[in-house]
Amino acid sequence: MVEINPIGYVRSVHSNVPNHWSISDLEADLVIEPEYTGGLASIQPGDRIVVIFEFHKSPPFTGDKLTQKPPHRDHKKGVFSICSPKRPNPLGLSVLEVLKVDGNVVTVSGIDMLDGTPILDIKPHITGRD
Amino acid sequence: MVEINPIGYVRSVHSNVPNHWSISDLEADLVIEPEYTGGLASIQPGDRIVVIFEFHKSPPFTGDKLTQKPPHRDHKKGVFSICSPKRPNPLGLSVLEVLKVDGNVVTVSGIDMLDGTPILDIKPHITGRD
Repeated sequence: MVEINPIGYVRSVHSNVPNHWSISDLEADLVIEPEYTGGLASIQPGDRIVVIFEFHKSPPFTGDKLTQKPPHRDHKKGVFSICSPKRPNPLGLSVLEVLKVDGNVVTVSGIDMLDGTPILDIKPHITGRD
Repeated sequence: MVEINPIGYVRSVHSNVPNHWSISDLEADLVIEPEYTGGLASIQPGDRIVVIFEFHKSPPFTGDKLTQKPPHRDHKKGVFSICSPKRPNPLGLSVLEVLKVDGNVVTVSGIDMLDGTPILDIKPHITGRD
């Protein structure tokens, strides 16, 4: 078992969010624990970042969720082919655009997470060999 | 605290791996726990998948690693701007190409993980709004 402690939380005023970052224009703050502020060095407005977070509202996973019908699809797909929050491990991933960095607070656009979502890691967005 | 149980492991013959998937042509197997085999439905050869894994060989994180000098760079960067395995939470992310799916084994290209690396999630690779 891997034990993960959040590095921060999402602070958002939005009670309804799109179900995927790729269709979201919403803004919110990533509030990072002060002890990790130094790790935000080099993150700048305009950067795209990968945020790994916990689907903290998801119920425990059950075998009947191994295949699920995504919204706007007409057939079921394997859970590892879709972005559903109901998955064996409650890990989410969003690619967000940085608008501002102020101390331990990163303001981003593209939010598809709920207020209070635990943030587990931030990584640079790397698209490939190019 | 979030408790994560691996959904499988990397099975690889390579003892030396590149330090990033974007520069790797190596092949290996993702061996998924049989109880999750159904979740692999819809994954096909040619697909690109996002694999979230544990940096299981990394030492516990210490504050002196908040900034690090990446290989081939001449100055330090914040840990959340780089892909270093030494991070507050030992989470890794690779984008891999599926070569074959055989039951609970997914053969992939682009491996930058070590043999025995715990796999925590597999997601579709989504590049953006397009």
